[in-house]
Amino acid sequence: MAPLTDLYHLTMAYGHWRAGRHRAPAAAELFFRRGPFRGSFALGAGLAEGLRCLRAFRFSAADVAYLRSVLPSTTEDAFFDYLATLDASEVTLSAVPEGSVVFARVPFLQVKGPLLVVQLLETTLLCLVSYASLVATNAARFRLLAGPDMKLMEMGLRRAQGPDGALSASKYSYIGGFDYTSNVLAGKLYGIPVRGTIAHSFIMSFTSLEEVQPRELPPLAGGEPVDLVALAESWLGQVCELLQTPPEKANRGELAAFVSYAIAFPQDFQGLLDTYCVRRSGLPNFCAVALALHQLGYRAIGVRLDSGDLAQQSKEIRQVLRACGAHFQVPWFETILIAVSNDISEQSLEEFSREGSEIDMIGVGTNLVTCPLQPSLGCVYKVGVAALCPAWLVEVNGSPCLKLTEDEEKVTIPGTKTMYRLYDAAGHPFMDLMALEEEPSPSTGQELAVRVLGQLREASKVVPTAVEPLHRTYFRDGQVRGATLRMVALESSLELTRWGLRLGGQHPTWTWSCISILQVCELLPSLPEVAMTERLHHLLTELLQASQ
Amino acid sequence: MAPLTDLYHLTMAYGHWRAGRHRAPAAAELFFRRGPFRGSFALGAGLAEGLRCLRAFRFSAADVAYLRSVLPSTTEDAFFDYLATLDASEVTLSAVPEGSVVFARVPFLQVKGPLLVVQLLETTLLCLVSYASLVATNAARFRLLAGPDMKLMEMGLRRAQGPDGALSASKYSYIGGFDYTSNVLAGKLYGIPVRGTIAHSFIMSFTSLEEVQPRELPPLAGGEPVDLVALAESWLGQVCELLQTPPEKANRGELAAFVSYAIAFPQDFQGLLDTYCVRRSGLPNFCAVALALHQLGYRAIGVRLDSGDLAQQSKEIRQVLRACGAHFQVPWFETILIAVSNDISEQSLEEFSREGSEIDMIGVGTNLVTCPLQPSLGCVYKVGVAALCPAWLVEVNGSPCLKLTEDEEKVTIPGTKTMYRLYDAAGHPFMDLMALEEEPSPSTGQELAVRVLGQLREASKVVPTAVEPLHRTYFRDGQVRGATLRMVALESSLELTRWGLRLGGQHPTWTWSCISILQVCELLPSLPEVAMTERLHHLLTELLQASQ
Repeated sequence: MAPLTDLYHLTMAYGHWRAGRHRAPAAAELFFRRGPFRGSFALGAGLAEGLRCLRAFRFSAADVAYLRSVLPSTTEDAFFDYLATLDASEVTLSAVPEGSVVFARVPFLQVKGPLLVVQLLETTLLCLVSYASLVATNAARFRLLAGPDMKLMEMGLRRAQGPDGALSASKYSYIGGFDYTSNVLAGKLYGIPVRGTIAHSFIMSFTSLEEVQPRELPPLAGGEPVDLVALAESWLGQVCELLQTPPEKANRGELAAFVSYAIAFPQDFQGLLDTYCVRRSGLPNFCAVALALHQLGYRAIGVRLDSGDLAQQSKEIRQVLRACGAHFQVPWFETILIAVSNDISEQSLEEFSREGSEIDMIGVGTNLVTCPLQPSLGCVYKVGVAALCPAWLVEVNGSPCLKLTEDEEKVTIPGTKTMYRLYDAAGHPFMDLMALEEEPSPSTGQELAVRVLGQLREASKVVPTAVEPLHRTYFRDGQVRGATLRMVALESSLELTRWGLRLGGQHPTWTWSCISILQVCELLPSLPEVAMTERLHHLLTELLQASQ
Repeated sequence: MAPLTDLYHLTMAYGHWRAGRHRAPAAAELFFRRGPFRGSFALGAGLAEGLRCLRAFRFSAADVAYLRSVLPSTTEDAFFDYLATLDASEVTLSAVPEGSVVFARVPFLQVKGPLLVVQLLETTLLCLVSYASLVATNAARFRLLAGPDMKLMEMGLRRAQGPDGALSASKYSYIGGFDYTSNVLAGKLYGIPVRGTIAHSFIMSFTSLEEVQPRELPPLAGGEPVDLVALAESWLGQVCELLQTPPEKANRGELAAFVSYAIAFPQDFQGLLDTYCVRRSGLPNFCAVALALHQLGYRAIGVRLDSGDLAQQSKEIRQVLRACGAHFQVPWFETILIAVSNDISEQSLEEFSREGSEIDMIGVGTNLVTCPLQPSLGCVYKVGVAALCPAWLVEVNGSPCLKLTEDEEKVTIPGTKTMYRLYDAAGHPFMDLMALEEEPSPSTGQELAVRVLGQLREASKVVPTAVEPLHRTYFRDGQVRGATLRMVALESSLELTRWGLRLGGQHPTWTWSCISILQVCELLPSLPEVAMTERLHHLLTELLQASQ
């Protein structure tokens, strides 16, 4: 993992080493300056990968040989010898637990150790954490919009940045609140439930009922196999009569594909309805096969739509399923799952909600995994060396001659910090507080003066009912500590509910019809707050004045 | 690699297997329907990964055990036994060479073999090829806009979808025409030249000249080491006098960082100019150190800017370098490389070109690797089984009841095809022609009737001076064939020049000032053309009529 970094870290490492500063105690904080997707929050994720990277951090002999070939020829041999001895055993990493809600400006990862190693970890950790957090956040936004009862499936394998991007997408979508993935390897590696339906190509590979092979299926309860082709055909006549659609418009290849699939998966029959006309072909054919299966004791499980006005069609489909269920006395028929896909975005979910729908399950691919609204989280990793430079971590982020006080957002908050999450009497978090490491922890039940970011000029008073350190130590003395490499699916959504989080931007703050575990549903305009202690604020002010 | 697929391919595979169709000869074509980024072309890439996947295509015992646990319990044991025996030894893959120009609708990968395997490869190949092609295309667009002489460096490691996404970005940016990557691992694995400069954090880790350690540097030609701190300080006075900037505004920490870096890399000294004020600090400090180095026989190599108006500043910097060079009689000073970074996009490159600049090297990260203008290529993979369904590969792409002739773009072109690239007398390609596999190859020098896509109603006549099959066979009988796994950097750009390709969309069709190997510079409005033979067109027409 060690060579997974930008070259300039190695040239700078040599600079530090030559200057004898390579073992200076340093600390780094990883954070983002603005919430992604114009929202206020992100889910911090990628911690497990970060820990794996720390454990494996080492330059092999081959790595060192390669570095010799690319660093300037004036680089001293002893530096390469030193690189070959490096590991992360002197590094301590603390972080928010995987999948936690984090806000802009609050470090969600802290790294302490010798300057050279802390510096070398910058790009690697940014690479491992940024996309993980971005896609987890994106997934959480879909979850918030879809509501707690909707089944959400990630299906972005073919659109991600290669296998690893796709696996990350599956994993962190699950952490962000999705239920399933289509990616078999992600299922195998991470234990995420996998789901799949059927593709247009399968349906189009059949043109007539003669192709169905085998044609027979025994009833669920046992007994003589029945010709399912003939049975489905006879049901098709009845369904078409009920629906008043011409039987000759029901595509025979599609019926053949449905029957063939039903014989292969009698207890898991699903139909993809839109290869041909949904109303006159896909739906009658599906109902005919599902009713034939029912006659043999089996239940179909679902349908999928992949084009057109999905919300409107889902309502029409539900109507037909109800009508069939009532007419043919198959009560479960109306509960058949309706799944949709086709370039689903946040906007689609808003439309489904606005128009009403009968959709039970949504598959999201491209707009989940590529995060087109903001394809990178823009995390930064700020390294400081307290002993060498008391003002470390205050910086101007590149804008030359900027008056530091002009743009609060661009001022990095100084010092090595401890972060606390403050809770109100109802047990809901209401503030993340940054304090200097040497400050005592805030006391519960006592009034505390804080400076809220964005309103730094005036102190506010808060009284936390409970105070929790935001970070835990996950890596120390070369060992991973804590058992939080597990998947935390849906806990994130639970956490989101306890904050009253907005999606931000152009999203209407509409109210959900369901009252549920996701009380965020109400989408109140209460922006969560981030604050710093008076002492930290004092240090910041001093440093800003000193740098004028 | 085999489990890197969507679950529905495995359920459908079972469907085919149950129906005894799993070994039916099938063929698939991989293509995109529209050029990405509103342009007309893409570079086909990812072939090497695709071939690796074919070679390794196998379900391990653990894979099969996992599949048993997720497929419906009614799935027959014999199917899993069959899966355990599968490999890609009966698959033949042909494709355009890695990095070739490809157009919408023209398959750039063809896969033939038993239906079940061909089907199972769909998502895997899409995953491996789509992002590779997208980022190679994106890189080529940057190259076209930047011109042939600009040095382009990929630096997207921290913004990509994890390590693998980042490595793909480095590799395929290089194939698309970039010169360098910042990613050390990509350099090591793929032999891409790596480059790096210096970061703000390094500069900010110094606050005073006392911190410089060691302070001395021997002259290049040998001799007594000289105190470079003192020497740089004395040069700073002279530079500030020449530039008429107050010496006290030159940040001492920055000067210390520059001197320290120069002592570490006397032959490779680079300065990052915008940690503090470029004009009053970064530039005087850099010039002072570079002149001190010059006095000892060394040449500084470059500066970098990471904020502000990059084009304007580059011109001011060049002026200062010229003035110093003239005044202090250091002629090479004016040729010092000016590198820029900071959220560079296609628009930035257009602005640089419009405003004029003195930029020599550009680092591109986020906008290269995340492809925000279009974060996925949207490739499709169409499988057909000729024996089962003569109309295979004609499809409606999901829009139900669509009249097939309404939207030419959505009609997939039928049949197993051979693609030819036609060249004019000047040796420039002017058309990609799709023919049925059984048709004879077009003859050179003979008039040929073709149907150009988008103008199918009328035949056009063309006379190719040379005809080349577009595809080569890269995999057959379980073996990779052909030696085209090598990197093809810049060949792609050369190929782009032979076509007269537009970037499309909102890009102005301005003319480059340079006449060079990249004659595409002229950016003529000649959209490359894609056509089909009369026989293929006849088949398409027949099938469209039959499906009415």
